[in-house]
Amino acid sequence: MKVFSYFKRAIHGRPAYSGLLAIFTLSSGGFVAYSESQSDRGRQSVELNETEPKKKRVVVLGTGWAGTSFLKDLDVSSYDVQVVSPCNYFAFTPLLPSVTCGTVEARSIVEPVRNIIKKRNGEIQFWEADCLKIDAANKKVLCRSNLDEKLAGTNEFLLEYDYLIIAVGAQVNTFNTSGVLEHCHFLKEVEDAQKIRKGIIDCFEKAVLPGLSEEERRTNLHFVIVGGGPTGVEFAAELHDFLNEDLVKLYPTVKDLVKISLIQSGDHILNTFDERISSFAEQKFQRDGIDILIGCRVVSISDKLINMKIKSTGEVSSIPHGMVVWSTGIGTRPVVRDLMEQIGQGHRRVLATDEWLRVKGCDDVYALGDCATIDQRKIMEDILNIFKAADIDNSGTLTIEEFKNVIEDILIRYPQVEHYLKSQHLSDVTDLLKALKGNDRDGVDIEGFKAALCHVDSQLKSFPATAQVAAQQGAYLSRCFNRRKQCASNPEGPLHFRGSGRHQFRPFRYKHLGQFAPLGGEQAAAELPGDWVSLGHSTQWLWYSVYASKQVSWRTRMLVVSDWTRRFIFGRDSSRI
Amino acid sequence: MKVFSYFKRAIHGRPAYSGLLAIFTLSSGGFVAYSESQSDRGRQSVELNETEPKKKRVVVLGTGWAGTSFLKDLDVSSYDVQVVSPCNYFAFTPLLPSVTCGTVEARSIVEPVRNIIKKRNGEIQFWEADCLKIDAANKKVLCRSNLDEKLAGTNEFLLEYDYLIIAVGAQVNTFNTSGVLEHCHFLKEVEDAQKIRKGIIDCFEKAVLPGLSEEERRTNLHFVIVGGGPTGVEFAAELHDFLNEDLVKLYPTVKDLVKISLIQSGDHILNTFDERISSFAEQKFQRDGIDILIGCRVVSISDKLINMKIKSTGEVSSIPHGMVVWSTGIGTRPVVRDLMEQIGQGHRRVLATDEWLRVKGCDDVYALGDCATIDQRKIMEDILNIFKAADIDNSGTLTIEEFKNVIEDILIRYPQVEHYLKSQHLSDVTDLLKALKGNDRDGVDIEGFKAALCHVDSQLKSFPATAQVAAQQGAYLSRCFNRRKQCASNPEGPLHFRGSGRHQFRPFRYKHLGQFAPLGGEQAAAELPGDWVSLGHSTQWLWYSVYASKQVSWRTRMLVVSDWTRRFIFGRDSSRI
Repeated sequence: MKVFSYFKRAIHGRPAYSGLLAIFTLSSGGFVAYSESQSDRGRQSVELNETEPKKKRVVVLGTGWAGTSFLKDLDVSSYDVQVVSPCNYFAFTPLLPSVTCGTVEARSIVEPVRNIIKKRNGEIQFWEADCLKIDAANKKVLCRSNLDEKLAGTNEFLLEYDYLIIAVGAQVNTFNTSGVLEHCHFLKEVEDAQKIRKGIIDCFEKAVLPGLSEEERRTNLHFVIVGGGPTGVEFAAELHDFLNEDLVKLYPTVKDLVKISLIQSGDHILNTFDERISSFAEQKFQRDGIDILIGCRVVSISDKLINMKIKSTGEVSSIPHGMVVWSTGIGTRPVVRDLMEQIGQGHRRVLATDEWLRVKGCDDVYALGDCATIDQRKIMEDILNIFKAADIDNSGTLTIEEFKNVIEDILIRYPQVEHYLKSQHLSDVTDLLKALKGNDRDGVDIEGFKAALCHVDSQLKSFPATAQVAAQQGAYLSRCFNRRKQCASNPEGPLHFRGSGRHQFRPFRYKHLGQFAPLGGEQAAAELPGDWVSLGHSTQWLWYSVYASKQVSWRTRMLVVSDWTRRFIFGRDSSRI
Repeated sequence: MKVFSYFKRAIHGRPAYSGLLAIFTLSSGGFVAYSESQSDRGRQSVELNETEPKKKRVVVLGTGWAGTSFLKDLDVSSYDVQVVSPCNYFAFTPLLPSVTCGTVEARSIVEPVRNIIKKRNGEIQFWEADCLKIDAANKKVLCRSNLDEKLAGTNEFLLEYDYLIIAVGAQVNTFNTSGVLEHCHFLKEVEDAQKIRKGIIDCFEKAVLPGLSEEERRTNLHFVIVGGGPTGVEFAAELHDFLNEDLVKLYPTVKDLVKISLIQSGDHILNTFDERISSFAEQKFQRDGIDILIGCRVVSISDKLINMKIKSTGEVSSIPHGMVVWSTGIGTRPVVRDLMEQIGQGHRRVLATDEWLRVKGCDDVYALGDCATIDQRKIMEDILNIFKAADIDNSGTLTIEEFKNVIEDILIRYPQVEHYLKSQHLSDVTDLLKALKGNDRDGVDIEGFKAALCHVDSQLKSFPATAQVAAQQGAYLSRCFNRRKQCASNPEGPLHFRGSGRHQFRPFRYKHLGQFAPLGGEQAAAELPGDWVSLGHSTQWLWYSVYASKQVSWRTRMLVVSDWTRRFIFGRDSSRI
């Protein structure tokens, strides 16, 4: 019964999370929370450790959500860790849209990587550089620092690794639309957000200059967002608040010329969210006067015009703009693309890993976060092996008892089984067994087994490119690294249906904790686990509490909360710096 | 007796200020203090006023200390005011050195100009642009906005004025030293401070990269400051604190390679300050390990080396550097230089005004702050006219009674008289009279009068290029503008010794309230009025209270104080953004 009760818990336990979410996040204090005080800073005098040959060298590329989360819990006593990233800080990216309008300051959402790793007693080395090339065959990476060339010494260096962790994130995806790189703002990095902030003020300062026609003023004050996903929508909402709460008072002469448009190629904005949230957001934006252009595909952008095609009619229309923010999905970075060519993944869109985050086609390379996707194993691919492994007496028929012996391994190896049961409203695995036993025999043969499981793989879907997934992957991978020795002799993973024995580790499993969509005017929408949806002002307060608690350090937590307070009292700053 | 008692007060009253300084500044809340709250922000709906022909058009160039201080109190009911500045904010420049190291954030020391002028009910128009050319003959200025050329509409526009206020400040003075513009950082603008902050982190990130020799690491970590004035010294102190309190803990492997050098062409650093402060600072820097290179003149700077001449020996030596900050005085901006050529001041170093801040050689143009200097009138130039004006009975001899009639006008018109009495330890004007009466006659003739006053002009010295002077000039000028009509019929100024009647306004008089030199390690030096000198930790707390109180708004005051608090608790941020 152990198996079945586990299964029941796994399915029915979920809705209970939602109620606990706020408390959990508040009390846990976020994923990399640590206390920092003057006394802490007193400790020092750590030295570069000499490369000890017995320690395996781990090179980590990137210090975003995935990389930082991996580093946070890694047991550095067994590894020689080197971190390479073009940013010497970790940025709390979900608050980037707030930075664009000065609701939160850029510096409040970043924490120096060295602050995070100095807690590890100097066992982790950090280098501010880009990784130019991964040589997977020779286990080397070539790096180049982006620092001022005038400074003394070379900017290029080569690192050798035993294990490579690729967590470089993704870059903007322009879908080869002409003019995007030249004329659009993006929302991937902290610098992007700072540029947008300056850009908004530029548009206003330009619009009030003497000698412009009303049409020119109107053009400069037309803000266009391309992409109706969570980032685009949150930015539109932030921008609307910034304009209406702060800027129209400082630029009263042009307040009636301001306009925000949101271009979305799909039929709805926030189309990855629950339908209720999507329509709530659309209604709120309509009331706010934000123009939503549904079903439009941008074909090109010039310095003054956006040209787009209305999908339904095929008609092409142009609108003048003062500023365009492009937020339509993510693309693969050149260094990852180059690796993909090397390892025979050149035909793929994204770097593929297995469920243990190991890059397919090379050894000892792991990839996590936005730069990779997990190629989830279909149960139908392994169905014969599963049947064989379960059918201990080789009778060609699977009894319930035999099936029970492997069910836990199946559930761990193929998470889609669990989702399938849930989607079919089957309360536990016995319902699946009933289907198997439909033919009233003692067991099922291979065809019956196939038939019972043939729809399970429809539940497979790739994980979204979110901070939540990246952070969970980082934490998962560090746990694997920490237990490497232990699990080599006592593997903890499920049965190796295709081979023999067990997998060394359990595969990665994603636990969706919900997602938010702030909609401006102190309102937000949230999709919580268990299909709960929360809308309105109270949700905004939930958002405040969750985002404050998730901050990476007490310093940034204090800064973010004081930024919010400052905004409530004094509004946002419009200085162009 | 009225005159003499006034005089006594003027001289003896001074020392009392010093004790009151902290309280005064705290209670006054700074020079442009105003309360800002949500309720304030509720007011709005101001419109551009149409140019009313009856109102005189005032164009103000610049929004630094002088310009902002002028705007703050200007009575906009009688003027049509247009402000042109390349920055849409006022920056509290005395805190710039703190911004370079993140002790205070850049945004905490700036206040949008529009925030300041929106209190004036829309009577002041602001345009973010540079003034390219002043056409004093036709009373026009040509302006060009520095905003993105891609935005719709022209960037150039022409403004006509009835009165022009030039408050554009100064630019860096390289003294034509080769390589300075290419390889040095400066400390004039907010952007400069932000660049320095990034540059410091760059030097450290570069110094720890793999593959550098120890010499190269040492070069990158050699920070050189050229100029031992208040700004250079404060920056050196801030930098020393940043390195020793924060960075050495994050970059422990290179902490012994860091060095700060301060190059000063004079014999002492802080040589405009009291000698006690100067030597206190030198001793403190010596203890801190900051290398002071006295009597050295920088002859050229390359990307890796500073070449300098030791003045005493004529020897030339070179030192490698990672970063150079150039802080050696100020130069004239091109637009001001161009105006000087137009009005016959081409041979001068700085734009000259009279004591009423009117630019010499053109009409209705005023200049104040760092871009101009007051050509103070020597009493000996006017000595004959003064004698004539005082000698009412035309006897050729001046009696005490006759002198008494003009003494107040003399004191107002020639402030050096007051300084002279003070320097000679003469308690009041009767001592001057005694000297006049040395020949035991009833009065003095012109030669005796000349002899008595011949040393007075030695007390003339030009005002320093400080925020304090600029702010006082702005306030003075706005008072003149506000009283223009009133004083046209009832002039309030002193006797017009060269002409007839009285000057319309009193001339500008500078009241020195003291100056600070923060020296790092929570220590500061202060020169207070009345030749008081204050040194050490308590002075740093005086500095904190004065600088907090002087903030331009409650918003920036709160931000600056919370930045200081954050620094005390968490240290400075080393993220490279």
